[in-house]
Amino acid sequence: MPRKGGARTWYFPDGYLPEKIAKGRMEAHEALMLFNVSKGPARVKLDFYFSDKPPVKAVPVEVPAERVISIRLDRPEEIGGLEIPPLTQYAIRVRSNVNILAQFGRVDTTQTNLAYYCCMGHCE
Amino acid sequence: MPRKGGARTWYFPDGYLPEKIAKGRMEAHEALMLFNVSKGPARVKLDFYFSDKPPVKAVPVEVPAERVISIRLDRPEEIGGLEIPPLTQYAIRVRSNVNILAQFGRVDTTQTNLAYYCCMGHCE
Amino acid sequence: MPRKGGARTWYFPDGYLPEKIAKGRMEAHEALMLFNVSKGPARVKLDFYFSDKPPVKAVPVEVPAERVISIRLDRPEEIGGLEIPPLTQYAIRVRSNVNILAQFGRVDTTQTNLAYYCCMGHCE
Amino acid sequence: MPRKGGARTWYFPDGYLPEKIAKGRMEAHEALMLFNVSKGPARVKLDFYFSDKPPVKAVPVEVPAERVISIRLDRPEEIGGLEIPPLTQYAIRVRSNVNILAQFGRVDTTQTNLAYYCCMGHCE
Repeated sequence: MPRKGGARTWYFPDGYLPEKIAKGRMEAHEALMLFNVSKGPARVKLDFYFSDKPPVKAVPVEVPAERVISIRLDRPEEIGGLEIPPLTQYAIRVRSNVNILAQFGRVDTTQTNLAYYCCMGHCE
Repeated sequence: MPRKGGARTWYFPDGYLPEKIAKGRMEAHEALMLFNVSKGPARVKLDFYFSDKPPVKAVPVEVPAERVISIRLDRPEEIGGLEIPPLTQYAIRVRSNVNILAQFGRVDTTQTNLAYYCCMGHCE
Repeated sequence: MPRKGGARTWYFPDGYLPEKIAKGRMEAHEALMLFNVSKGPARVKLDFYFSDKPPVKAVPVEVPAERVISIRLDRPEEIGGLEIPPLTQYAIRVRSNVNILAQFGRVDTTQTNLAYYCCMGHCE
Repeated sequence: MPRKGGARTWYFPDGYLPEKIAKGRMEAHEALMLFNVSKGPARVKLDFYFSDKPPVKAVPVEVPAERVISIRLDRPEEIGGLEIPPLTQYAIRVRSNVNILAQFGRVDTTQTNLAYYCCMGHCE
């Protein structure tokens, strides 16, 4: 059985940046983890979809060989200058030139606690 | 490899609306996110199943082309007038005429904090 | 495309009953949701695995046609009299005579809050 | 349909050990649950990947027949002496000589509460 190392397309329907109002040790945010077990770099394009406007497509990202990277979705400088407003529904499609793994996570500190949500995404 | 853009049927076994008793910044609720990357609208039917009564089937929803929408399950006006009582087990089957992505989320503020549960669902 | 309605075997590696020490509005527990969209009842066998003793196999459960049920794993009367001690690692295999959907959830109130963990399981 | 009992390769992109700063009843940690329903032991190799250094590969683990084990990722003695620093992104690939199930979980007690994140992983 060949080792596949994931898939070339991943989907994350539920993006929703929390507000940064609490002052805990962790800052509220969402992040996308991209994991490349192959021997060469993965050239990735991120497509961002919204409820009420056209998608922003093909934001480029590179994942080095045999590395995992974390992309902060509340930092425009990490996603090609795109500013995603908080408390707005968005979705992500990840397209890679080689098989990778992708996971999405949210850390919410809206109230006096910490809440996680994390999932693997649907892949094809 | 053709880009599939998800699947036509999705299942979510664990629906259970929390009570709206806390007064945090976020209201307790459950939501269904439907994500359509195709170039045309997705015509979706939602089937709701319960533990002790027959299902309510074929509640219609439409997802525009290249958009993601969030359907609140505690708002009858968003699900064809269906009222789902809180603290009652229910399940959802999503049927679409084209491939879509679906994800389910719960925000619980029953106690003095916020708790998330979110998952991608099983698809076919 | 035929509608499959899930799968006949589901696996949940991470069972770990929380202690019932907090006095919140929700009792700490784990539950298994079984969802049957078929027109006939599903006859299900639950197999429980542990770290340091042999498995307990073939605890029978029935899911009526077109219903979802929730089985409490902290209540021996719902799982054939089996007592699962709290704070002990266990895993579940679900075997059904027809395709079903299965999901596992934990509600933890160990500390002054509520924490959820929920996932769909691996199916075959 | 043959019973597969999982898969031989599993991937977990989002490892990130929380700090051990709170004094709740549960210690902050991450764990990997490996579940073997087969009649013989599973010989497993764990590969750890990072963002800024080469992977550490082939840490050996054994899962007895018909057992589930939990491996603590904050305890070097359980992962071949490897010390994973807290607040550092890492990812895991699990390779087994027979089909197994794998799940990853985090218990975070950074703030005054408990937060869970748990998922099944991607398998091949």
